[in-house]
Amino acid sequence: MLTPLMDAVYVSASSADKPLSPELVEALSPAVLPELRSPTELPQSTRLVIYEITGPNDLFSLESWLVAPRLYALVVIGNEDQSETLMKALEAGADEYLLNPEQNTSLAVLVLQRAVSRKQALLQSQQTYDELEKLNLELMTSLDLLKQDQQAGRYVQQKMLPDSPWVFHPHNFAYMICPSLYLSGDFVDYFPVGKHQVMFYLADVSGHGASSAFITLLLRVYIRRYAKRAFKLGGQISLADILARVNSELLETGLGKHLTIFLGLMDSRSRQLRYCNGAHFPYPVLFDEEQGARYLKGKGMPVGLFADATYEEFELLLHPRYHLTLFSDGVFEVIKKSSLVEKEKCLLEIATQFAGRHDAMVKHFTELGMQDAPDDVSLLAVSGS
Amino acid sequence: MLTPLMDAVYVSASSADKPLSPELVEALSPAVLPELRSPTELPQSTRLVIYEITGPNDLFSLESWLVAPRLYALVVIGNEDQSETLMKALEAGADEYLLNPEQNTSLAVLVLQRAVSRKQALLQSQQTYDELEKLNLELMTSLDLLKQDQQAGRYVQQKMLPDSPWVFHPHNFAYMICPSLYLSGDFVDYFPVGKHQVMFYLADVSGHGASSAFITLLLRVYIRRYAKRAFKLGGQISLADILARVNSELLETGLGKHLTIFLGLMDSRSRQLRYCNGAHFPYPVLFDEEQGARYLKGKGMPVGLFADATYEEFELLLHPRYHLTLFSDGVFEVIKKSSLVEKEKCLLEIATQFAGRHDAMVKHFTELGMQDAPDDVSLLAVSGS
Repeated sequence: MLTPLMDAVYVSASSADKPLSPELVEALSPAVLPELRSPTELPQSTRLVIYEITGPNDLFSLESWLVAPRLYALVVIGNEDQSETLMKALEAGADEYLLNPEQNTSLAVLVLQRAVSRKQALLQSQQTYDELEKLNLELMTSLDLLKQDQQAGRYVQQKMLPDSPWVFHPHNFAYMICPSLYLSGDFVDYFPVGKHQVMFYLADVSGHGASSAFITLLLRVYIRRYAKRAFKLGGQISLADILARVNSELLETGLGKHLTIFLGLMDSRSRQLRYCNGAHFPYPVLFDEEQGARYLKGKGMPVGLFADATYEEFELLLHPRYHLTLFSDGVFEVIKKSSLVEKEKCLLEIATQFAGRHDAMVKHFTELGMQDAPDDVSLLAVSGS
Repeated sequence: MLTPLMDAVYVSASSADKPLSPELVEALSPAVLPELRSPTELPQSTRLVIYEITGPNDLFSLESWLVAPRLYALVVIGNEDQSETLMKALEAGADEYLLNPEQNTSLAVLVLQRAVSRKQALLQSQQTYDELEKLNLELMTSLDLLKQDQQAGRYVQQKMLPDSPWVFHPHNFAYMICPSLYLSGDFVDYFPVGKHQVMFYLADVSGHGASSAFITLLLRVYIRRYAKRAFKLGGQISLADILARVNSELLETGLGKHLTIFLGLMDSRSRQLRYCNGAHFPYPVLFDEEQGARYLKGKGMPVGLFADATYEEFELLLHPRYHLTLFSDGVFEVIKKSSLVEKEKCLLEIATQFAGRHDAMVKHFTELGMQDAPDDVSLLAVSGS
């Protein structure tokens, strides 16, 4: 286990008269064990220092051998008369002791070998630990860098979202988007179209994170542009036409990203709501005192998936004190029910319970664990006052 | 160091006739050391097992005490007659041995205490290591998640970039963007405007990463929209007007993000180049055989920083075999010269050396260490043929 000469050295501080027994030296190494007086003479490759204690004074010179970190095991040896001093050497940091090594050479060799392998194992595990710690630091730095980057991206995305709450009399808007990562594939927008109309939507881009967030930004630009253009052309704005155009734009990007969207348009002078549903699910919940809560039916194709997609427009008259709540499908990750039917039932109840109380609904979903959901979770509340 | 009764136990496999000497027991613990025959009797809190060897057969029952992982140190004791067996016990995994512990009680106590503290330190360091390893795994998982997210985002951004190389006869386009992270704040676009004109630009959004990448996507939509709109209106397209509009759009977002841009327009039927420089630096390098390489002067304000920014349009006649090279300022991170003057001189030389050889120029910048630059590095080469 020990290679001759270099791996082990013999140290006798005060006397060289009584070296290790020839049997022990022979057992340790086939060649002569080098004898040293000072650690400065120590070869780099030394793995074992056998330090002979012949009297209490040897403790002083022992100190210089007990430096940390050292790459060798230090074993103190001596006869029975030195047991007190050997104990002090152990307390000072020596790895092992050997009492009368000559009396049992094979035991002595075993102790020396174990001291070496223990020390080496300790050094090895320290090195592994240090490497792991270094890797850890590198990982944390990389992670911080990416997190900062994502947070900056999130800031941009949030800036592109509308104010909340916001009033376009008599319609009141409020929303909340809770991204599963930093960036969200869910998006909400509402804005005036001319003096009397207000457009709003909640969209859910396939996937989540940065790639989906990019699409939400494009969506915002597209929808606002087409709404403005349609308004300028005069006549009734066609929501179906807007979705068809966004559908084409998305397909043209060739990104393989599609989205679901509920797009609505209301007038401040009438109680009419017109809407298109581009495969958005769950359906929005409409609540008022007269009819209670119900899902706003009306289906359509997802946007950005089929080249020939067309959309159907629906309309209805709203109760003066209506409460319309839109959700992204992430809510179903949060509502802990076993079947979709039960989840939909639960969502109706939640929409009823928190109708007109957006903040309380957000709090409710937060308590349900929205922050830790694997998907983006979004709510958009629109109410008449 | 050891609390009475629970922390240490005494095991004698084959004989209870010769227990530990009262002095040793007294020294270890003020109370009676419990004596056990089987590991199943061992209290959870045991930190030390003193195992007495009275003959070779004791090795068999020792095995059940040497289970891994164990939370206690195991020290074998015996008299000189048992030294062979003690050695075998050590080889089998015992932590320490004690020969004739009664002969030197204080040394024996020290050895036992050291065995306990060594074992505890080992367990502690193993636990720390395990925790570090677990943290490491968590970090790697988080990092992977973010990296995947950024890569997906990068895919989207790349899809929004034009084909390279691309020909709009007689103009040839090729570009390369090397992001410092996954997502880039540098952006390049070129596209036909009507049948005979081609618009191109290289832009550098302040900052880098996701937040800047978002802006590049908006920029693409804005520029293409305004170019299309200007073309539809007929007459000469005003590049200055396009930049002024993008300037307003960017300011309206309130994101505090601005950009520098070199925007150019060429006609396939003439040799005219018209351009605006929105504070883009370095200036593009124009090279042809007649005049050699020179910077294309013409300054302007950055885009998205000042509400009242206006832009000046420049024009010139291109040599039929011109080579126009645009760089983002990241190239200056790559060119290792001490002063900006020297860097600009070097860039002229590079543009000359690699005029018309885009791939070779990319290779050159790669060799200079472009991949590891702290900023995004971009090149756009436009050549006449």
